[in-house]
Amino acid sequence: MSLLYFIDLFGTAIFAISGVLLAGRLRMDPFGVIVLAAVTAIGGGTIRDMMLGATPVFWIGNTTYVWVIIITSLITMLIVRRPKRIAWYLLPVCDAIGLAAFVGIGVEKALSYQDSYMIAVMMGVLTGCGGGILRDILAREIPMILRSEVYATACIVGGCTHTGLLELGVNSTQAMLGGIAVTLLIRLAAIRWHLSLPTFALSK
Amino acid sequence: MSLLYFIDLFGTAIFAISGVLLAGRLRMDPFGVIVLAAVTAIGGGTIRDMMLGATPVFWIGNTTYVWVIIITSLITMLIVRRPKRIAWYLLPVCDAIGLAAFVGIGVEKALSYQDSYMIAVMMGVLTGCGGGILRDILAREIPMILRSEVYATACIVGGCTHTGLLELGVNSTQAMLGGIAVTLLIRLAAIRWHLSLPTFALSK
Amino acid sequence: MSLLYFIDLFGTAIFAISGVLLAGRLRMDPFGVIVLAAVTAIGGGTIRDMMLGATPVFWIGNTTYVWVIIITSLITMLIVRRPKRIAWYLLPVCDAIGLAAFVGIGVEKALSYQDSYMIAVMMGVLTGCGGGILRDILAREIPMILRSEVYATACIVGGCTHTGLLELGVNSTQAMLGGIAVTLLIRLAAIRWHLSLPTFALSK
Repeated sequence: MSLLYFIDLFGTAIFAISGVLLAGRLRMDPFGVIVLAAVTAIGGGTIRDMMLGATPVFWIGNTTYVWVIIITSLITMLIVRRPKRIAWYLLPVCDAIGLAAFVGIGVEKALSYQDSYMIAVMMGVLTGCGGGILRDILAREIPMILRSEVYATACIVGGCTHTGLLELGVNSTQAMLGGIAVTLLIRLAAIRWHLSLPTFALSK
Repeated sequence: MSLLYFIDLFGTAIFAISGVLLAGRLRMDPFGVIVLAAVTAIGGGTIRDMMLGATPVFWIGNTTYVWVIIITSLITMLIVRRPKRIAWYLLPVCDAIGLAAFVGIGVEKALSYQDSYMIAVMMGVLTGCGGGILRDILAREIPMILRSEVYATACIVGGCTHTGLLELGVNSTQAMLGGIAVTLLIRLAAIRWHLSLPTFALSK
Repeated sequence: MSLLYFIDLFGTAIFAISGVLLAGRLRMDPFGVIVLAAVTAIGGGTIRDMMLGATPVFWIGNTTYVWVIIITSLITMLIVRRPKRIAWYLLPVCDAIGLAAFVGIGVEKALSYQDSYMIAVMMGVLTGCGGGILRDILAREIPMILRSEVYATACIVGGCTHTGLLELGVNSTQAMLGGIAVTLLIRLAAIRWHLSLPTFALSK
């Protein structure tokens, strides 16, 4: 099993947990929980594949992703009830790990379909942010990407690091890990210290 | 005209009515009503086809679907104003009939593109729930699928019944009708007696 | 550079500005602003291409669109802060110009993939309205299309004018410009005089 594939499954599991935790706040039934977990975990990559024309989309040809979501969701529902206080603290951290992994995956996959680094970064941002945005829209939360805690920024900087390292001749795996690390660190720092860029604001 | 095709058009008409009824609550203009009806009626199948790579999507190659939506919407707008009290009672029932039909159609279509029963059930759930979710997002309602009345559950159980009957060697049409009946009965029972599974809830 | 291409890039820039202006009201960080601008500018055409099977979607093969969005967004952020009072007045007007251009582009592109005028009009409406709807969903605004100011209506009438002129034997470019003019005039008139069709309303 390649590292890329492992990271992809790991991100899938993490994002499924993030979906389950949000579903728990909304008092959904168990199947509804799995639907929300699936949207969160494979939503971004699905949109990416539809845009690239990489159809049938990735999880149709390889059902491992769906099994990972189902099993992760069930385990999370069973385990998470006990330490209720930990759950909300963990949600943004889970989200950050999944986000970083998926940005890396998205950049990598886009480069196997076309050559533009800029498009690859956009596909990375989409893969990372798409599922979380869909989750938040379904749950009628304000999408995290619209909040000020450098969410899209982290993805863009991580994606640019990834493609920048490739441009410098670093090999594919190391470049991806570098990009993932940058995305993750920026998001974790932003969560920890409530960092934000100066916002662009227009008064009414 | 095959039974599958008839059921598909019937579900399309029913979901269009569901879109029109919601639009009526939002005081939209007639063309806006038709747009919302169309999103509700063909949204789920459109997402399914884009994921499967079955493009151009089904209603581009066969304009009958769009005509069914336009004509159904116009008739509904003309007729429904009189018996105003019936309308809100009918909305969830219409929704249940369209839902059940579309889950069956979705499972069937997915099996003509790939072999996994699990993916087929997911595509059935998507075909059934997708349009209604898009409708509710556009109308800023909380998507029905997130409410506790076993919405996703009904689709999943109906889809599993469908594929389970196929596995047992039942012929394609009977398996589909069996699945549709199960989805419909569960939803109607849930609406009538406000059934719900125990919800998964995390306190803040 | 063909007229079609120029109009497409112009509509892209206009819609990006519309996204930036809305983002400014939501106090997003600069990268979030660009994400919202991009969703607004290329969202509708992306959905159209995915439905038609015209993948990879248009902006993946030609990065000019993305550069137009990035540069327009940066310039808008720099310039727009000064004349703050103009901004909100301009938002619906920008939106109308982009809308009209994109309906024309969408009809034109759909006709290069299939023959039905009805589907072409639908693709025009989708290209014009899709990005704005996605923008409004992300920003948790009520989508403009659901408001009563003949939004979908303008697109449908403009699209029908476009295809009607083609049917009458008018050449492709003139038919498109005619359709664009009609869409634009209807929207501007609707904004100026708060025109609306009689709404379809059901009491609860």
